Amino acid sequence: MLYDKKRGNLENWIVTEEVFDKRYLGKCEAIMSQGNGYMGIRAATEETYIGEVRNTFVGATFNRFDESEVTELPNAADLIQMEIELNGHILNLDSGIVKGYSRDLNLRSGELTRSFVWITPGGDEISFKFSRLVSLRNKHIVAQKAEISCVNNKLDIRLKSGINAQMTNSGVQHFTEGEKRLYEGEYLHLVQTTTQSKIDFVLNSVHSFKLDNSAYEPSSLIMMDRRKIYYEFKGFALGGQVLSIEKISSINTTRDMGSEDCSLQELRAKTLEAIKLESSKGYDRLLNESSEEWDNQVWNKTPIEVESENPYDQLAIRFAQYHLRTMTPMHDNRMSVAAKGLSGEGYKGHSFWDAEIFVLPYFTYSDPAAARNLLEYRYLSLSGARRKAQDNGYEGAMFPWESAWLEDGEVTPVWGAADIVTGKATKIWSGFIEQHISSDIAYAAWQYYQITRDEEFMDMYGYELMLDIAKFWSSRLEWNEERQRYHINNIMGPDEYKEHVNNNAFTNYMAHWTIKNAISYSEELKDKKPDIYERLNRVLELDETLKTWLDRIDRIYLPKPNEQQVIPQDDTYLQKKLIPLAKYKNQENVGLIFKDYNLEQVNNIQVSKQADIMILFYLLESLFTKEVKTANWSYYEPKTLHDSSLSLSTHSILASDLGDSDLAYELFRKASEIDLGPNMKTSDHGIHAASIGGLWQCVVNGFGGVRLLDGEIRIAPHLPKSWSRLKFPLVIKGDSLLIEVTRNLIKIIKTTQVNSYLEININNQKYILDSELAINY
Amino acid sequence: MLYDKKRGNLENWIVTEEVFDKRYLGKCEAIMSQGNGYMGIRAATEETYIGEVRNTFVGATFNRFDESEVTELPNAADLIQMEIELNGHILNLDSGIVKGYSRDLNLRSGELTRSFVWITPGGDEISFKFSRLVSLRNKHIVAQKAEISCVNNKLDIRLKSGINAQMTNSGVQHFTEGEKRLYEGEYLHLVQTTTQSKIDFVLNSVHSFKLDNSAYEPSSLIMMDRRKIYYEFKGFALGGQVLSIEKISSINTTRDMGSEDCSLQELRAKTLEAIKLESSKGYDRLLNESSEEWDNQVWNKTPIEVESENPYDQLAIRFAQYHLRTMTPMHDNRMSVAAKGLSGEGYKGHSFWDAEIFVLPYFTYSDPAAARNLLEYRYLSLSGARRKAQDNGYEGAMFPWESAWLEDGEVTPVWGAADIVTGKATKIWSGFIEQHISSDIAYAAWQYYQITRDEEFMDMYGYELMLDIAKFWSSRLEWNEERQRYHINNIMGPDEYKEHVNNNAFTNYMAHWTIKNAISYSEELKDKKPDIYERLNRVLELDETLKTWLDRIDRIYLPKPNEQQVIPQDDTYLQKKLIPLAKYKNQENVGLIFKDYNLEQVNNIQVSKQADIMILFYLLESLFTKEVKTANWSYYEPKTLHDSSLSLSTHSILASDLGDSDLAYELFRKASEIDLGPNMKTSDHGIHAASIGGLWQCVVNGFGGVRLLDGEIRIAPHLPKSWSRLKFPLVIKGDSLLIEVTRNLIKIIKTTQVNSYLEININNQKYILDSELAINY
Repeated sequence: MLYDKKRGNLENWIVTEEVFDKRYLGKCEAIMSQGNGYMGIRAATEETYIGEVRNTFVGATFNRFDESEVTELPNAADLIQMEIELNGHILNLDSGIVKGYSRDLNLRSGELTRSFVWITPGGDEISFKFSRLVSLRNKHIVAQKAEISCVNNKLDIRLKSGINAQMTNSGVQHFTEGEKRLYEGEYLHLVQTTTQSKIDFVLNSVHSFKLDNSAYEPSSLIMMDRRKIYYEFKGFALGGQVLSIEKISSINTTRDMGSEDCSLQELRAKTLEAIKLESSKGYDRLLNESSEEWDNQVWNKTPIEVESENPYDQLAIRFAQYHLRTMTPMHDNRMSVAAKGLSGEGYKGHSFWDAEIFVLPYFTYSDPAAARNLLEYRYLSLSGARRKAQDNGYEGAMFPWESAWLEDGEVTPVWGAADIVTGKATKIWSGFIEQHISSDIAYAAWQYYQITRDEEFMDMYGYELMLDIAKFWSSRLEWNEERQRYHINNIMGPDEYKEHVNNNAFTNYMAHWTIKNAISYSEELKDKKPDIYERLNRVLELDETLKTWLDRIDRIYLPKPNEQQVIPQDDTYLQKKLIPLAKYKNQENVGLIFKDYNLEQVNNIQVSKQADIMILFYLLESLFTKEVKTANWSYYEPKTLHDSSLSLSTHSILASDLGDSDLAYELFRKASEIDLGPNMKTSDHGIHAASIGGLWQCVVNGFGGVRLLDGEIRIAPHLPKSWSRLKFPLVIKGDSLLIEVTRNLIKIIKTTQVNSYLEININNQKYILDSELAINY
Repeated sequence: MLYDKKRGNLENWIVTEEVFDKRYLGKCEAIMSQGNGYMGIRAATEETYIGEVRNTFVGATFNRFDESEVTELPNAADLIQMEIELNGHILNLDSGIVKGYSRDLNLRSGELTRSFVWITPGGDEISFKFSRLVSLRNKHIVAQKAEISCVNNKLDIRLKSGINAQMTNSGVQHFTEGEKRLYEGEYLHLVQTTTQSKIDFVLNSVHSFKLDNSAYEPSSLIMMDRRKIYYEFKGFALGGQVLSIEKISSINTTRDMGSEDCSLQELRAKTLEAIKLESSKGYDRLLNESSEEWDNQVWNKTPIEVESENPYDQLAIRFAQYHLRTMTPMHDNRMSVAAKGLSGEGYKGHSFWDAEIFVLPYFTYSDPAAARNLLEYRYLSLSGARRKAQDNGYEGAMFPWESAWLEDGEVTPVWGAADIVTGKATKIWSGFIEQHISSDIAYAAWQYYQITRDEEFMDMYGYELMLDIAKFWSSRLEWNEERQRYHINNIMGPDEYKEHVNNNAFTNYMAHWTIKNAISYSEELKDKKPDIYERLNRVLELDETLKTWLDRIDRIYLPKPNEQQVIPQDDTYLQKKLIPLAKYKNQENVGLIFKDYNLEQVNNIQVSKQADIMILFYLLESLFTKEVKTANWSYYEPKTLHDSSLSLSTHSILASDLGDSDLAYELFRKASEIDLGPNMKTSDHGIHAASIGGLWQCVVNGFGGVRLLDGEIRIAPHLPKSWSRLKFPLVIKGDSLLIEVTRNLIKIIKTTQVNSYLEININNQKYILDSELAINY
């Protein structure tokens, strides 16, 4: 279905759909979605189909429909749709005959094209090429081109195209209708305002036509409908003539950084000026500009090269990098990466631990400024986290499981799918008891600091963030008199098939790590940066808090391996029922177990949704021996259904660590197939940001064996059998490195001189890197 | 496209679609819509198509999305849609081959059926019959049946069917999401609540299956999605076996009369009991019950028989009667008839003068209890009308141009379509200056009283309603010093192509009539019903008001015929520009003139949207001579584009009056074709209630020549050439009459004895009707 097409120099750069199948619209809409971190647009086709999901999102423009729902990214007006009638037949690939169909997402330039010949029910043979981009140069601009010609007949064309604000999020309308206007007889202009958050969106759109490259003016009629403004154009082309239609559009909002204090009238005027300028460039120049930016920001900056027997592997990692860019707000530290990026309504545009644990490492290791932005988002969200702690009777910063706008606090919905037994909706407990998110954030900030040594970040944001999270955890501990230990009870770990457990190993270890780290930072600050210590003391009562930490740190219960070297995932997991799991391990779609059991029943079975102990091993790897890791892998992996897209990449990295390259590679391929693979329903609600971030980790942290251990960088490659070469960049302590790994050589080039040298651990040996190293292994 | 199919005894009872054309979904959705006055459901197909409009409305459940929009009938959850996959192919008539297609609305039973054979892209030949009803017996019940069989293969079937509350009004979501539940493992249950008016809707749905008439249990899986609850069924049938699926559903709301004080929990419990009872009857019995009710309430009660060379004429009048029943709330006096009935989003479910002047006469003349209900609605809306008067600096009752819920007052939207010149939305002035609606209501109440002599209605509602409207008009008059007359300035008459005119003839005459009538009622009441006079005196300061009326009545300016016998439509119409109108008179779709001129320009041309002076002649016919009527017809009709669906029927009746039967018939046919005719786009937003009411008036008031003149009934038939017989019922002063007109005989039978005799004017001769009359003419 989806694979790479070799096109001249563009080997392994193009994701292609070769057959259009209306049953699986969501797949390409999501994986071929375009964006620039500011906005994301699903790749819904120009013509409409039943079952399509036509989404346009602008990051962080959250709105809450009513008190019974949680805030979500609203689906803005659509700019893409065109109704095209040719010699009386409305373009629709259900009817007539389609030949030579190809839809291609060019990862290199960010351009999406679709070309085919459509033989209408009337027998006319019409060739189409649609092209589209979301600009990486000017983040507000969307450009489209349609080239149409008919070989065997004169072509009468009717086109309806404009701005359609009738869009909803699955029926939920987040906007009030604003003014619709036509300016200067050509600029379509529409305003819409979110109902609760009162964010104004201003959209503009302008069309131009050419016939065989000469300017052409079809007859045109301006139309307004409810929440809609569009043109109806009528024109014609002679047989063989190419009619080319360009549509250049823009989106701006009053939430945009720099536009918050803009009046709506000012913003409207500003966007009109901008659309005039941008549209005057024409599609091709806009494409060149954006494509240049893709090279500057991604392909020349963080190039990753894979030589594999399966060229698909190179495509998969580029696909990951493409989406890591489309989903990440580089321009604004008031927003983070959503679980589905900006490619679908799934998870409502909210950010989860996916952002810190799965996506962030890519940026931390290779584009630290972007990483810092995402961490600043958490710092700026502290007020909501503190409110959540307070509301729950705790201290410090208790981060929301799902996070939206800065002040929102917890936004996890409370009700989910149907319970097959009771007929009621299932309660979603994550927002209440899945609390490890706070440690995950502390860990990500720590990791960022370790790799970048960005002292400014730490002084301004990092220490406060990490210490306040530690403060939450120490208040969260519950003293168990019998065992003379602090427990963490009634919790949910990463494995969401186990609700309301006590002492989830991942949660306890990470809480312990967070507090321990906070103690060491506090003592260090006291000593070396007393002014910062004093500021934090005022905000966090650090003197007192540190005492509590020191008092409790060694009495936090950390589950230890049992006789079989298995660490209990929680207090009761190992005592739960065992059932045959083969059916669910071999499932075609995730969640099959819920067709047979309800969540309460699943809670009482030794079955896991995703990595739990495994992710602990990955994050805190030096705490556990290889023997323990292997024993736990053998125990837990067979019980893990990988029903979360966060599971496979972690397992792949651990398999690399444990030396099983074949398995690591197999899991990497599986992880890449979550979005790129043949299952056509998996991406309906959007791409899987965590899995996509995880792909990079499989490659760099897994196959490349890159890790940060005790403050220094370690490289211990485990190339898969089919790989002969892997090349990737890292940015360590401000210095840019290029790492090249072949089957027996590791080559490292340091291209900058921020540090005169770096200490590097390669396969457990320390090396000094001045400017270049080449190590046989 | 649409015509009658002879089926056994069912000649001229069935509206048929013989070819399914996806470009014209709206046509059948609207004209084949089903309803019972409580709810209306568009005839959208079970499978979905792009461009469909899937509406389910419950009368008077108005909701306002936000302050920038007006209140409207919200589109409730859909019960009808089914996704049916057969041997891997989802039913969709775009693909495969369709044979023997027929969609039939049986006007007699109210049942809608659709049958066809679909040859799937896989080559399986599958026959379908879908049947559907909205019950006239139990107004909350909707029943569906699908019968499916495959001749040449085993049939694997997957069916997704349930309740879908993702529906919107063109993108506007009027509901908050309520609870979704499955009860007793079979009853799908969904609650939704309007956002502003806080009306709870409770929907239930239950499925049952049979295979060749034996009970059958497919495998089933309950699914919940956002605002959705549905089943996914999987089953199979052997080649030739008929799989029959029944789906019985119900809708109730907390606005329902009798349910206003019900708690939501009580209502939910009540509806669950009801759906159990009703679904146990099965589709066929529910159909029988409903069909019986159609006979009782419509076909046996108010039968109209037409013998015409064109059988279509009989179908057209039945089509009108069918929809007059589906759109009219017989069960509740807190609502009226909307301009599109319950068949589309057009005009937002609001009521206009269409209800009183175009729809009401059918009921006034043949089903007075229903007519009284509709008039009571206006009485109950007095508070809004009084507020509107007050807000505009007037006294009395100034009724809203568009009316919704009782207390709402004016609900006309303020902004309409695009101005082709300025690019801005056009302001809709009707809600401000189209004020004749108040006289229209007074006229309708007067007409009702004349025909029924319902003294109780008058004492309780009628007098107060009419006098308060007169009070508004006398406060609305403006003294013109120069001409020593009262003017009505800055007004819009029925012809909406003339905004902001002075002394619109229709408005002035009707205001004058209203006040004059009020004077006569007041004096009569003072004399004969002093207690009622006193009550009204307290409410309306009648003593004072009467003095004002008497002072002003003879000085109200009533435009008189000029030398050419033409009455100026307003002070400036006759001085406006003349342009060639042939292009617009011959238009395919209404409103063509706005492709060339904007409203401001149209305002300055001698062109009319619809009957204006003509409707005046019709309502107050005895005030004008035949000579004046003919002269004005000749002047105005050529300038009238009939861009309103209210225009043709009035012109047809006047043509009958003027003795031009051929023209009258031609206009009747044109009026009937507004919905039933070959133009496939006219009914997209719903059927045309006024035109449908007008059809009955063409037949009975036009061809039958029935009129109420000076308090007595007049019959002066003008049968069209192609008609040999017309038979229709009337209810006069409580007595039921059957009138039969042939080319030279009028036969009247009085079947009841409320009055021992009635005086009747037949062709300008008075007769006494005891029990039967037969007059040659």
